[in-house]
Amino acid sequence: MAIDPGSIQALTFDVFGTVVDWRSSIIREGEDRVRSGAIGWTKLDDPHRMALDQLLVDFKITGLSEAEIDHLNRAWHRLEPWPDTVPGLTRLKRRFILATLSNGNVALIVNMARRAGLPWDAVLGAEVARHYKPQREAYLTTAAMLGLRPEQCLMVAAHNGDLAAASSFGLRTAFVPRPTEHGPGGEADVEPARDWDVVADGFAGLAARLGC
Amino acid sequence: MAIDPGSIQALTFDVFGTVVDWRSSIIREGEDRVRSGAIGWTKLDDPHRMALDQLLVDFKITGLSEAEIDHLNRAWHRLEPWPDTVPGLTRLKRRFILATLSNGNVALIVNMARRAGLPWDAVLGAEVARHYKPQREAYLTTAAMLGLRPEQCLMVAAHNGDLAAASSFGLRTAFVPRPTEHGPGGEADVEPARDWDVVADGFAGLAARLGC
Repeated sequence: MAIDPGSIQALTFDVFGTVVDWRSSIIREGEDRVRSGAIGWTKLDDPHRMALDQLLVDFKITGLSEAEIDHLNRAWHRLEPWPDTVPGLTRLKRRFILATLSNGNVALIVNMARRAGLPWDAVLGAEVARHYKPQREAYLTTAAMLGLRPEQCLMVAAHNGDLAAASSFGLRTAFVPRPTEHGPGGEADVEPARDWDVVADGFAGLAARLGC
Repeated sequence: MAIDPGSIQALTFDVFGTVVDWRSSIIREGEDRVRSGAIGWTKLDDPHRMALDQLLVDFKITGLSEAEIDHLNRAWHRLEPWPDTVPGLTRLKRRFILATLSNGNVALIVNMARRAGLPWDAVLGAEVARHYKPQREAYLTTAAMLGLRPEQCLMVAAHNGDLAAASSFGLRTAFVPRPTEHGPGGEADVEPARDWDVVADGFAGLAARLGC
């Protein structure tokens, strides 16, 4: 192992893809809503359209109706965790502070956590830092608000790009690939792009690697 | 009851005095540390000195040594909840979002919560808003980050002044007096200064009044 768990005080988590399975959640939501007759098929049949709409929200691109934005918000507030997420976080929380470091806004992450039972100690990241990842302020404000130096924080993400940014600002890095994030045959990051401090198979694997 | 619980989405909590018993915690801490020989009596025998030092930290007044500040931080991170706090919050959490709206910084509130088992959904308030109570930004930024209008938030505090500020910015108000906050014979707010939306006896009483 390239890291001493004793040097880490907090784990900071990317959320979309890393903690929750946004693609399957959105597809299932679409299927259920279509079955119930609540919406037409064309509204939710394409997860890429949903991913685009999420970006519109995250980056405050306007032009959508209030009803459309509300609808999108409600869907993304209902994302489901990966199966290993809740038991893994529960193990990790015994030893480490668990904070979100997501581009998702506070209300979205809070509502998702309440529904899915995600035991965050703090919801931080882009909105609190007033800068989106991969900007340095998103990472460094999160560490500072936890009262920690960057190297006392371990960024956990399924995305090499997120870890590259975190590493450049002094955080330690844990790569937890989610091979099916983009569905079967999708282009998820399955291999570490660099020699990250930790590479683990799911949150159970992460907990084991960190001695929890 | 002057309030419809259905109109409330979130409870925002003052922490020092309202959620935790800072006076007894600091006294007990002082006694224990003196008994163990860790520090001399003069260091912690006066809770008012500790309260003053806490204000120095809250308001970023410098001049203390790093060791002194660290020591103070550790003591305040170990504050004990009132006996009704954890069971009351647990009941309230089933129905409402629970967020801190304290002048305490994020790290302090997070460490306190981990030790005491306080089930916050979000740690917000002064540091996140970058303004201290009773400034309007502390209250309104907290509501906005929860994705709520001020009137969808119920400010819970043992202090009439905190509620007066919250009310002036549109939040609803719940007064939960803590008569012994300043010790036997101390000058705590024991009576509501105004017709607050809710007046409750402890967090169990608050949960009952809100239908939890």
